[in-house]
Amino acid sequence: MPELRKDPIVSRWVIISTERGKRPTDLKKDMPPPEEVEAGKYCPFCKGHETSTTPEVLAYRPEGSAANVANWTLRVIPNKFPALMIEGDLNRRGDGVYDMMNGIGAHEVIIESPIHGMTLTELSVANFEDVLWAYRDRTLDLKKDKRFRYILIFKNHGFRAGASLEHSHSQLIALPIIPKSVMEELQGSEAYYKYKERCLYCDIVAQEIEDQKRVVAENEDFLAICPFAPRFPFEMWILPKVHDAHYEDATKHEIKNLAALFQRVLKKLSRALDDPPFNFMLHSSPVQMTPDLAYYHWHIEITPRITRLAGFERGSGFYINPTAPEVSAQYLREIDVP
Amino acid sequence: MPELRKDPIVSRWVIISTERGKRPTDLKKDMPPPEEVEAGKYCPFCKGHETSTTPEVLAYRPEGSAANVANWTLRVIPNKFPALMIEGDLNRRGDGVYDMMNGIGAHEVIIESPIHGMTLTELSVANFEDVLWAYRDRTLDLKKDKRFRYILIFKNHGFRAGASLEHSHSQLIALPIIPKSVMEELQGSEAYYKYKERCLYCDIVAQEIEDQKRVVAENEDFLAICPFAPRFPFEMWILPKVHDAHYEDATKHEIKNLAALFQRVLKKLSRALDDPPFNFMLHSSPVQMTPDLAYYHWHIEITPRITRLAGFERGSGFYINPTAPEVSAQYLREIDVP
Repeated sequence: MPELRKDPIVSRWVIISTERGKRPTDLKKDMPPPEEVEAGKYCPFCKGHETSTTPEVLAYRPEGSAANVANWTLRVIPNKFPALMIEGDLNRRGDGVYDMMNGIGAHEVIIESPIHGMTLTELSVANFEDVLWAYRDRTLDLKKDKRFRYILIFKNHGFRAGASLEHSHSQLIALPIIPKSVMEELQGSEAYYKYKERCLYCDIVAQEIEDQKRVVAENEDFLAICPFAPRFPFEMWILPKVHDAHYEDATKHEIKNLAALFQRVLKKLSRALDDPPFNFMLHSSPVQMTPDLAYYHWHIEITPRITRLAGFERGSGFYINPTAPEVSAQYLREIDVP
Repeated sequence: MPELRKDPIVSRWVIISTERGKRPTDLKKDMPPPEEVEAGKYCPFCKGHETSTTPEVLAYRPEGSAANVANWTLRVIPNKFPALMIEGDLNRRGDGVYDMMNGIGAHEVIIESPIHGMTLTELSVANFEDVLWAYRDRTLDLKKDKRFRYILIFKNHGFRAGASLEHSHSQLIALPIIPKSVMEELQGSEAYYKYKERCLYCDIVAQEIEDQKRVVAENEDFLAICPFAPRFPFEMWILPKVHDAHYEDATKHEIKNLAALFQRVLKKLSRALDDPPFNFMLHSSPVQMTPDLAYYHWHIEITPRITRLAGFERGSGFYINPTAPEVSAQYLREIDVP
């Protein structure tokens, strides 16, 4: 059983996934050069290889077909090497100054396309929308489990961004705790709300639309910006223009507009920097926090990985960014995509 | 002039170092494979090349010698490409919801040895102690400048850990703000102190000495542990056994014992994982916080870089660590070093 442990100083939870059982000798080999990564290897995520994976928990395929057969367009499966276990109770406990609990959670993989090598930017509009629907469907299902406080959806694109399989996929982790970065956003935006009685994210949206200088693209429902104080060059955020705390409450109309804008800015990023490695992360309100928080506003953070993070950033939480967001926003804005 | 900007949501300051002026086309080329990094190139940090660097601000060399000549054993110079500028005033200002100030600060390089290729683990005991003295001497000098609130000392070892020059060196950045990670430690340990009237770090030291299972090494003054909730495999912390808020207040006796323990655990790490890339960071009390804080305890964090950080960690502040600290501590404890 993996263990969740809390750092007593900064209240950061970590998963100690002893099941994965990495010995020091394994760790030495942990970073093969990119070209060694599964070149030409058998891919369990490809169409026709459904029996090589864990049984699916969701798939989009023609109405009435059987599960785990080769006629799907999108498939969600439990991670074969999950960081957390779905069965069991939390058993929160202490040891002197320390706190821990069992590593209970869900860890799923969203296979975005049956075709190997197809990237998010190449998906049809309908298939891109389906990826967003799958995020929502899985969130709605998992939030019924009251052990889970947070559902984290993210994607690693490219080896340097942490992708370990080439076949395009996103991941979902359901957690019994709220991750530190989201907790900080909740606390910061709550403090602002107490003072102003307004949502900070809504104020940012209004100011950015007014200023225009950090806007990458926008449509009726969504705004894509390079944020004012970005950690990374070409960092982008996508925010709903109207206040909304929970991603999973998005309407059909909003999903359609989100897909259009999201794919468009990913295409721009890909053209700007020659298909750079990147991560994106969906930050939504903790699932059990209902009614909707007036101060928290869901959003997507896209962080290209084109500079190396050094000790300075890692140990201080203080970032040096060589590219002003006004420069990257203008550059991205001017890139034409179909 | 670089700019310091604050994220209004999580209060994280970033440096936008527009002076470095990275255009998107430069960024594309930012990650050469390790073997391309300055192999056989002219090294400005080597003995005899003193005129290729900025003039030194500190050097250890025979009493009475001239500055910037080739008889030094350790040298500190201003960074040729500083992230922050030393001249000017802060000019804190706002723009709607945003806050910014001028990028004022100091950015220095501590050249740890005149010999190219010499690593920290290979330095003589006396030279290793001198590195620690240099950290202290520069801190004492820079803390006189009341614009600076924090002095951050860190090292990147190996290309993957962010080192851009092979010649062994550490860096110092003096900042007009307190970096986020340190702020979190201050807030967390203050909250504990308010409740318990004890220093949390002191309690951790006591519990770890009692338990022994996460201890890597110790001597009269210092304790090296793998922390209870480590973010990374083989993460290590070195803490003074007796409460002390400011690193720069360490006595001669303590510097001697710190050097001995610090070099010993770096040797262990190097043997355990075949000279892995790593970062270390000195976390000390903000320089202007006097008298000494009863709740904050300076320490060193050593973070090997042997796993890739993926989107999950980056976007959530929530880490998956495949190696329990009890396992890595035992492994490191059992490695014999001279």
